[in-house]
Amino acid sequence: MADAVIIAYHRRMVRWEPGAKGRLAAAAMELYRERGYENTTVAEIAERAGLTERTFFRHYADKREVLFAGTSELQAFLVARVSEAPVELAPIEAIAAALIELADTTFETSREVVVRRQAILAANAELRERELSKLAALASAVAGALRDRGISEPAASLAAEAGLAIFKVAFERWTSQSASLPLAKYIRESADELALLSARR
Amino acid sequence: MADAVIIAYHRRMVRWEPGAKGRLAAAAMELYRERGYENTTVAEIAERAGLTERTFFRHYADKREVLFAGTSELQAFLVARVSEAPVELAPIEAIAAALIELADTTFETSREVVVRRQAILAANAELRERELSKLAALASAVAGALRDRGISEPAASLAAEAGLAIFKVAFERWTSQSASLPLAKYIRESADELALLSARR
Repeated sequence: MADAVIIAYHRRMVRWEPGAKGRLAAAAMELYRERGYENTTVAEIAERAGLTERTFFRHYADKREVLFAGTSELQAFLVARVSEAPVELAPIEAIAAALIELADTTFETSREVVVRRQAILAANAELRERELSKLAALASAVAGALRDRGISEPAASLAAEAGLAIFKVAFERWTSQSASLPLAKYIRESADELALLSARR
Repeated sequence: MADAVIIAYHRRMVRWEPGAKGRLAAAAMELYRERGYENTTVAEIAERAGLTERTFFRHYADKREVLFAGTSELQAFLVARVSEAPVELAPIEAIAAALIELADTTFETSREVVVRRQAILAANAELRERELSKLAALASAVAGALRDRGISEPAASLAAEAGLAIFKVAFERWTSQSASLPLAKYIRESADELALLSARR
């Protein structure tokens, strides 16, 4: 009885807490790891976070969205950076610079969460396909930003796809068990390697 | 009654016909266009082709598979060509050469079907995600073929992803309404453009 009161009190206290979204995400990640993504319900996520289902749905459309919530901010960041990049910077270099900044400010400090997320995605084909779809949309948005800067097609789309390729390869190395460098270094290496590869005709 | 006999006879005649797979594919494409992919059943596809559902399932696991049946042959072709490519050919060029051959031998002669398939995919998010997943698997397989040729990582994966980017951009131009060149030309242009883009540092 005392426990129930404490839990009820705790719930009331946290309902309006600004950290609710983050706590729901953390609870979801825990549960996806413990019992698998398929076997986890929104009710369980809310319970683990000490919040209500209603609160969950104020922040996320469904349990899948928890894993992709960061994508739109990520896309907006890249589009903004590519749009603002100095005109003398080559398109692929402008994208690489934006990715490196993103790596240092966002990915590097949350490697553990990112790796855990990758493991959840690896276990579920539908989630992996969703991820690919989000990345394809991201490449389209970046290509649009390049066109707005006066880069014509097919250069804009090719640069965006090349930027995505650089990121994918760098990201895979960084999230692998043998990773020893920060993500920014892997991005730099991938960009340099692609330039070398393309020069060899 | 006479009609029923003729249809029954027709069905018996075609049951073992070697062209059954192609006829099922053609019937499926017709129906997907007429009433949408979601609203078409396997029974309807079989009926339209004048074949039985059993025959359908001898050739395809489900109605989605009809749209992706060519992918494994395509992947096998690219892997074989990249494996056999002269060692002096740069990795991206080896992939581009294989793609150009594929364009001339396969895609160019069936542009209409390919364009129709793209329209079906465009109308269905699940199918688009499936396509991206197949393309990602294709890039992995090509990267594997390059590693077997002694290309180290991350070069192998980057070359494969770059090759895929070249193909995606070329394919989109070729399937667009304003397309005026053969796919092989768009692939060549994309490969040259990516080399130029990468050279601009």
